[in-house]
Amino acid sequence: MEVSWEESVTHSINTVYLLFSAYLVFVMQLGFAMLCAGSVRAKNAMNIMLTNVVDAVVGSISYYLFGFAFAFGDSSNPFIGTKFFALKDIPDNTYDYSFFLYQWAFAIAVAGITSGSIAERTQFSTYLVFSFFLTGFVYPIVVHWVWSTNGWLSPSSSESLFGSGAIDFAGSGVVHLVGAVAGFWGSFIEGPRVGRFDAFGRPMPMRGHNATLVVLGTFLLWFGWFGFNPGSFDKILVPYPSTTDQGNWTAIGRTAVTTTLAGSTAGIVTLFGRRLLVGHWDALDCCNGVLCGFVAITSGCSVVEPWAAIVCGFFAAWVLIGLNLLALKLNFDDPLEAVQLHGGCGAWGLIFTGLFAKEEFVVQAYDSGATGVERPYGLFMGGGWGLLGAQVVEVLVIVGWVSVTMGPLFYALHRLNLLRISVEEEVAGLDISRHGGYAYTAHQEERQPQLYADYITLQN
Amino acid sequence: MEVSWEESVTHSINTVYLLFSAYLVFVMQLGFAMLCAGSVRAKNAMNIMLTNVVDAVVGSISYYLFGFAFAFGDSSNPFIGTKFFALKDIPDNTYDYSFFLYQWAFAIAVAGITSGSIAERTQFSTYLVFSFFLTGFVYPIVVHWVWSTNGWLSPSSSESLFGSGAIDFAGSGVVHLVGAVAGFWGSFIEGPRVGRFDAFGRPMPMRGHNATLVVLGTFLLWFGWFGFNPGSFDKILVPYPSTTDQGNWTAIGRTAVTTTLAGSTAGIVTLFGRRLLVGHWDALDCCNGVLCGFVAITSGCSVVEPWAAIVCGFFAAWVLIGLNLLALKLNFDDPLEAVQLHGGCGAWGLIFTGLFAKEEFVVQAYDSGATGVERPYGLFMGGGWGLLGAQVVEVLVIVGWVSVTMGPLFYALHRLNLLRISVEEEVAGLDISRHGGYAYTAHQEERQPQLYADYITLQN
Amino acid sequence: MEVSWEESVTHSINTVYLLFSAYLVFVMQLGFAMLCAGSVRAKNAMNIMLTNVVDAVVGSISYYLFGFAFAFGDSSNPFIGTKFFALKDIPDNTYDYSFFLYQWAFAIAVAGITSGSIAERTQFSTYLVFSFFLTGFVYPIVVHWVWSTNGWLSPSSSESLFGSGAIDFAGSGVVHLVGAVAGFWGSFIEGPRVGRFDAFGRPMPMRGHNATLVVLGTFLLWFGWFGFNPGSFDKILVPYPSTTDQGNWTAIGRTAVTTTLAGSTAGIVTLFGRRLLVGHWDALDCCNGVLCGFVAITSGCSVVEPWAAIVCGFFAAWVLIGLNLLALKLNFDDPLEAVQLHGGCGAWGLIFTGLFAKEEFVVQAYDSGATGVERPYGLFMGGGWGLLGAQVVEVLVIVGWVSVTMGPLFYALHRLNLLRISVEEEVAGLDISRHGGYAYTAHQEERQPQLYADYITLQN
Repeated sequence: MEVSWEESVTHSINTVYLLFSAYLVFVMQLGFAMLCAGSVRAKNAMNIMLTNVVDAVVGSISYYLFGFAFAFGDSSNPFIGTKFFALKDIPDNTYDYSFFLYQWAFAIAVAGITSGSIAERTQFSTYLVFSFFLTGFVYPIVVHWVWSTNGWLSPSSSESLFGSGAIDFAGSGVVHLVGAVAGFWGSFIEGPRVGRFDAFGRPMPMRGHNATLVVLGTFLLWFGWFGFNPGSFDKILVPYPSTTDQGNWTAIGRTAVTTTLAGSTAGIVTLFGRRLLVGHWDALDCCNGVLCGFVAITSGCSVVEPWAAIVCGFFAAWVLIGLNLLALKLNFDDPLEAVQLHGGCGAWGLIFTGLFAKEEFVVQAYDSGATGVERPYGLFMGGGWGLLGAQVVEVLVIVGWVSVTMGPLFYALHRLNLLRISVEEEVAGLDISRHGGYAYTAHQEERQPQLYADYITLQN
Repeated sequence: MEVSWEESVTHSINTVYLLFSAYLVFVMQLGFAMLCAGSVRAKNAMNIMLTNVVDAVVGSISYYLFGFAFAFGDSSNPFIGTKFFALKDIPDNTYDYSFFLYQWAFAIAVAGITSGSIAERTQFSTYLVFSFFLTGFVYPIVVHWVWSTNGWLSPSSSESLFGSGAIDFAGSGVVHLVGAVAGFWGSFIEGPRVGRFDAFGRPMPMRGHNATLVVLGTFLLWFGWFGFNPGSFDKILVPYPSTTDQGNWTAIGRTAVTTTLAGSTAGIVTLFGRRLLVGHWDALDCCNGVLCGFVAITSGCSVVEPWAAIVCGFFAAWVLIGLNLLALKLNFDDPLEAVQLHGGCGAWGLIFTGLFAKEEFVVQAYDSGATGVERPYGLFMGGGWGLLGAQVVEVLVIVGWVSVTMGPLFYALHRLNLLRISVEEEVAGLDISRHGGYAYTAHQEERQPQLYADYITLQN
Repeated sequence: MEVSWEESVTHSINTVYLLFSAYLVFVMQLGFAMLCAGSVRAKNAMNIMLTNVVDAVVGSISYYLFGFAFAFGDSSNPFIGTKFFALKDIPDNTYDYSFFLYQWAFAIAVAGITSGSIAERTQFSTYLVFSFFLTGFVYPIVVHWVWSTNGWLSPSSSESLFGSGAIDFAGSGVVHLVGAVAGFWGSFIEGPRVGRFDAFGRPMPMRGHNATLVVLGTFLLWFGWFGFNPGSFDKILVPYPSTTDQGNWTAIGRTAVTTTLAGSTAGIVTLFGRRLLVGHWDALDCCNGVLCGFVAITSGCSVVEPWAAIVCGFFAAWVLIGLNLLALKLNFDDPLEAVQLHGGCGAWGLIFTGLFAKEEFVVQAYDSGATGVERPYGLFMGGGWGLLGAQVVEVLVIVGWVSVTMGPLFYALHRLNLLRISVEEEVAGLDISRHGGYAYTAHQEERQPQLYADYITLQN
């Protein structure tokens, strides 16, 4: 009936670690808001920033009421959790409030990804419905499958798929692919923005209004990813019994390093790759390149060597470049490249992990470095096909699950004329038509101060 | 004469926790700067950002020299502290440097609140005087009353008011109400901005110049609030003797959750409430809604259940909406709604705590969960009138104290013609009249590159 | 063959501390990007932000491959490290991944300083070469000298210079002076921007395009400096044997306080000093003032009393003001004042430490507060000439080393016509000439929505 000294220390350190990681993940919401705002036209900036705020505030309530319960309400059910609604019985001896907060910060990020794909042409009230449904139901189910101990895809499950389970450490699939598949259906059903492609299907330039916001958002996302990837260990005070001085603290540092290297490599490759293709050094491409590297390494960040992270980032960049070319060709319009970036590189990240995961690190991440444990690991590292198979299954079921839930939702909204705004509104911009005014105001009196001064004098 | 292992661990963990919380609170200063800048017209952006920088740098010196001493210089005096000037005798066995830094980050926030109320029309040199006086004297006195062990309103005092003392955990009253009352007097004495109301007292549109900065500031404030509220525990390594595995780490996580839920609820309610009232989805209203929820929960964040935080946020939103309507009716002009937001919701937060504080959590927050302690707690939770009474007293004495100190100061400055700028300067904008130029520069050569190129060629 | 409880706790706490400090230092990269972007003209904003992104992504790879090895690859060689290439043999019993990440965040900051000096007129491909060389070779060598245990200037070396070694705790010299000397040669060889000085050598106004970004960048740098200076202790769980309850946690808090006081003082002095000189309250001067105080205290932050930090900041402000006047007189054009700020105040910081370092604190920072250790310390504190001599040597060798490496590089690039862009490109701006477009886009359809709507209708 008392807390021991060792337990107090352990809880304190782990809580400090997890909470500050959660705060960093929360910063990603700000990063998304700035990235999205800068990437759309000025007339829609307010709209897309509001969607990011709404993701956070609506997500708080829906994740508190039932999202967390669906995801982690541990039960014998491998498909959906069934307790912890409205945080009932929290804290228990497994989950404390800090864990809820950390998971909440993840949950609100998912809809943020999707908001980019359907930007500049979606009705706001529809956004509220979709965000609530995605954050509160579609996403938590996937979390339950992959991250809860009883999930049918979980590597921690006692009856794990192919004796392995899928390794999606921080959510290349669970978070990024889910958001991207939802975004794909939304964007596909809505069609491209007015004027994005001409009558012959040729793309017309349609640049975002503020590159500074894009860079700001990118760096904030980078900062937040240090909470996203290394933070996913949840606990730092976990020694590895077979070593002399290693523990989760080592693996956590390594995870921060792999994350950094993958993002950096992808950024460089995209910068030079696009230089070759379009002839100039494009800052925005470079930013998206960095992000695509992060998305890809998110799955395997804790279980691969630093050099492998460079391989991961290298190919992620080409996945992004290739899919962007394909999207242009197919007249698919995603204002933030979110489907290509989070979807394409999220899927690549899962496959990559199946190829390059190192046995020692897998045991560290999933069995606290216990001695004598054997697990499938990366195919190229000699670990057999079990892990790769589970990774492929994760890609497929996420694509399937999100498609069968979000696809019909978007289609129904479309048929009810609730999905897309009118052409007139789109041309005028969402901010003036739905949100009461533009994000940027040029004041009359600032332009003609003398005139305005006279007016004031006259009025008095 | 040596530090024990247990003490070293305890100090290390608690210092990590407190310092990083302090850093987060410091981010709120940036959040205020961006929020304020975006909410004023472009011609005054530089001015208001400079006031936020000045709050920080002037506050550092005044809080170091005497502010901290007035606040925490422990003495038998329940009204004002009398040691630790210029950090003399720090560290002692109660306070270390990290505690000073954490309190410093709070102190500089107060004047930032007030700066919003008097924005766009106040002389800068006056701002320097007022900021120094508020941060260095008026605010620290209130801190001493409520937060130091000997304060007459402190719940930790041995002779606490009504056997209870006021519970203002992170400062709905101490920080937000103080800043707002100061702002009220400043704004009231200055009167509305030129052109804010027409000759018939009808409000004229006067929008801030940049909604992106408002969203940026809001998210940064949210991020910082994770340091403000949960951080106010100061120590994380504090086990609760009557539990098996809980301690401050549990209460800290819960505090982060209540904070999130209150802000989110208030954001949603404001969004929908304003939608009903004005007919559009207003991102700026939603941002202010989120902030008003944070302000309100700041007092009781550590002592209420998550569901109660939702109640707190719900009413906070209506307090803000109502006071904003009232302000319009009374032709009271506060460019940042700071009086309504920080004052109205700060006061509501104190009352709310008197109604909903839960006994178990109060004992955790103020007696480290000791067994056998009895304390008054929330009226609606069965805890009697003691706490609610103390809360009401806190509201009243803060309103009184700040009014009798800041009111005369602003009035004297007003009578000396030092408070408000001239109409001409106000129309031209503070940036060009006092700060050497506008915040945003459009360069001649960018508009007419060929002309400029010719000029350069001719010149050479 | 097992990790003890004490070791696990120690590693966990220290890793949490170091990693989150590293994340804060990383935020400085964002701070630089925003500060630089705001300080240049809009037509070059994309270019300079891209250089900051490139510093990070290219720096990741070069520092991983060999930079870290040159810096910390411990060897008997006092001039250059020779192991740990591509993180081989990391972690060992001295360095873990978290230490690499922390040092990486420092490394990428150096080129960011230089990028400011050569802004608005430098070829981007040249920037890639220079950034790679500076981050991967020139800077790590200096790190090895001063910060590795075997460095010839290191205060930790067994044969330390003058029995003292140089105290450059967080890098006034190692980071800031290195970046500034590189910037000096770049800027000096390139010459001033077109139009910066007229035919008679009089400066023409050439303001940055966005003061909001400057304030944003300044606050972010302040936030990041809390990782830079206090973080440089690397470990927090280090008790001081001669005290009853002090340890690195005390010194770390004190370091955060000295940092804050120096920056604040310098900000205030610059604000008032420039007010006297130019007649208005300049927000941008105040921001640069704050930063110059941080740069100066970075060397001695851990070894001086808080009151001495105020002295440090006071003189730093005048160093900046004086050097800025001198630069104008000499027609030296550094768009970010980086040479004056990081170079002048970096050098002053090193000298300051030689004057004001306190014996007790020096022993704490460099010998974990061991009893009976004697070290040279500040001249004015009675510590003799040894430390001051070493500080002067550090200034001289950094100026010399960076000059003989970066000077010829910039000169060679200049002779090959690879350094500076053409006058035409400079007038048009780097963004349109090299980066595919401006950072800010005003969309045709936003200006003339009806016209555009007609066009769309006709097209369909």
